[in-house]
Amino acid sequence: MGQIYRNFAAKSHTMSLLVIGSVAFDAIETPFGKSDRIIGGAATYISLAASYFSNKINLVSVVGGDFPVTSIQMLEKRGINTKGLQILDDEKSFFWSGRYNNDMNTRTTLVTELNVLGTFDPIIPEAYQNCEYLMLGNLSPEVQLKVMERIRNRPKLVAMDTMNFWMDVALDDLKKALKKIDVLIINDEEARILSKEYSLVKASRVIREMGPRYLIIKKGEHGALLFYGSRVYFAPALPLEDVFDPTGAGDTFAGGFMGYLAQSGRVDFDNMKRAVIFGSAMASFCVEKFGTARIENLREEEILQRVNAFIDLSQVDIDLTA
Amino acid sequence: MGQIYRNFAAKSHTMSLLVIGSVAFDAIETPFGKSDRIIGGAATYISLAASYFSNKINLVSVVGGDFPVTSIQMLEKRGINTKGLQILDDEKSFFWSGRYNNDMNTRTTLVTELNVLGTFDPIIPEAYQNCEYLMLGNLSPEVQLKVMERIRNRPKLVAMDTMNFWMDVALDDLKKALKKIDVLIINDEEARILSKEYSLVKASRVIREMGPRYLIIKKGEHGALLFYGSRVYFAPALPLEDVFDPTGAGDTFAGGFMGYLAQSGRVDFDNMKRAVIFGSAMASFCVEKFGTARIENLREEEILQRVNAFIDLSQVDIDLTA
Repeated sequence: MGQIYRNFAAKSHTMSLLVIGSVAFDAIETPFGKSDRIIGGAATYISLAASYFSNKINLVSVVGGDFPVTSIQMLEKRGINTKGLQILDDEKSFFWSGRYNNDMNTRTTLVTELNVLGTFDPIIPEAYQNCEYLMLGNLSPEVQLKVMERIRNRPKLVAMDTMNFWMDVALDDLKKALKKIDVLIINDEEARILSKEYSLVKASRVIREMGPRYLIIKKGEHGALLFYGSRVYFAPALPLEDVFDPTGAGDTFAGGFMGYLAQSGRVDFDNMKRAVIFGSAMASFCVEKFGTARIENLREEEILQRVNAFIDLSQVDIDLTA
Repeated sequence: MGQIYRNFAAKSHTMSLLVIGSVAFDAIETPFGKSDRIIGGAATYISLAASYFSNKINLVSVVGGDFPVTSIQMLEKRGINTKGLQILDDEKSFFWSGRYNNDMNTRTTLVTELNVLGTFDPIIPEAYQNCEYLMLGNLSPEVQLKVMERIRNRPKLVAMDTMNFWMDVALDDLKKALKKIDVLIINDEEARILSKEYSLVKASRVIREMGPRYLIIKKGEHGALLFYGSRVYFAPALPLEDVFDPTGAGDTFAGGFMGYLAQSGRVDFDNMKRAVIFGSAMASFCVEKFGTARIENLREEEILQRVNAFIDLSQVDIDLTA
């Protein structure tokens, strides 16, 4: 077999993936230390993670004139097409600053400056029009809807992330967006708020009735659940010595997940399961250093080793068929 | 293959399992309702769960004259040897009462009456002396040590449960007991307190340096981790619509785990992994009804179906070897 490995190495058959989301500055404090103002943003993490699987990553986002050209070059060096990255010279990039608590699961937002993101008009370059897969990173549902309207041919697969904030201030638009997508990727807290159900099994049913056929519920250090029809798949998170910085882990998961799907070109439950493992593997790298540092320069061999660690962690030789 | 299924059905080759722990009364309140005074206790859940895998379950415990003979008959009907169940006619059985909060993960103890358990002297019947596997349910480390001293030939495998309380009031005895066992089965909170480490990976190392080669950390609805040497296995918990009553789930896990090991007669990491799945499957039944109600009358077919649900939930067809 080994088809996955071969596909993984040979990216020329990959589907194109359009990624929309923030490209931004973050300043992060954790119990382990404090970062400078570093680059972050959902679309940054998603694109970087996906770039290990596909050489057809098309980025749509917006930054200000303060955004370092070296960071754009870093994205381009990873094969990410930045033609759709608007640069508004006279404005400032989105900025977020936060502090993680000792448990590394909860954080306090210190500063949010929307800046260019406040008026973001997502322009889709003509060259991106025939994208096959679409990943809508966490943004206002209004912008997410606009993106879907502006793509002339519906992509083969549309995945979306969102957050609590939009459930509070833009639920109607969020519900409109949910009707148009295939995969929703959110965390357990968000799933409970969106569905008004505590049981994630019940929540998954309520949310899938809102539109998406596939639902992924991320549970942080407790792994991720994939729901489809009556089927459920659970992927653990890798037990780690230390989580250095969780920022971007969820987006990195989404990027690895969509990148793997784009690379393999197949959308079915069994392949989604594999994509969840690859997404989890990418996220497990992300938390090892501040910001994007760890996922800017991974070797394919490292990724495969990590995926193997997930397989060792979760797979068992058991046979009940006799 | 199908060896597991055949072993499962043919219990005649099973190892004997000695189970020590409380046999007691519980009164339980959950958001779903309130139980009467029903039978409970660690050894009750462990023995019942193990009885589906082995017909050589030997129980050592103590009850008062108030304990219903019909409950003892129920245990005997499941093939559990109650010769070692002391009945102190003039005393009262151990009684625990608690209320679960809405999240079903936290609970408040309303009443604890030690009664017969306060002076429990664990007498091992001569017929139990050559037990091959030993499960020390949660009791004072002093009693757990006494049991190990009174068994003349060391069993092939000794597993133990404990709780926070003993870490506070009997840490020296607990550490002595840990030196003598093979498998420790505790929850994540207990692992963190015992090891003084937040990271479960670090905690697992500290705890295994205290004695047990194998460590199982139960994470409730988030599954269970098995540590051995440099290897880790993670088994998810089955995502459930509702958890009706979590009482006894941890003990039921331990019973299924040890029962499966006793039945298959093999102690190695791969077989421990399978045992964790069987333990998780048994625990997933336990929470469906109050107390022991659901695990008193299971059919083997139901158990195999549940194990299959765990396999569907966690196993993936992936091949990276090419």
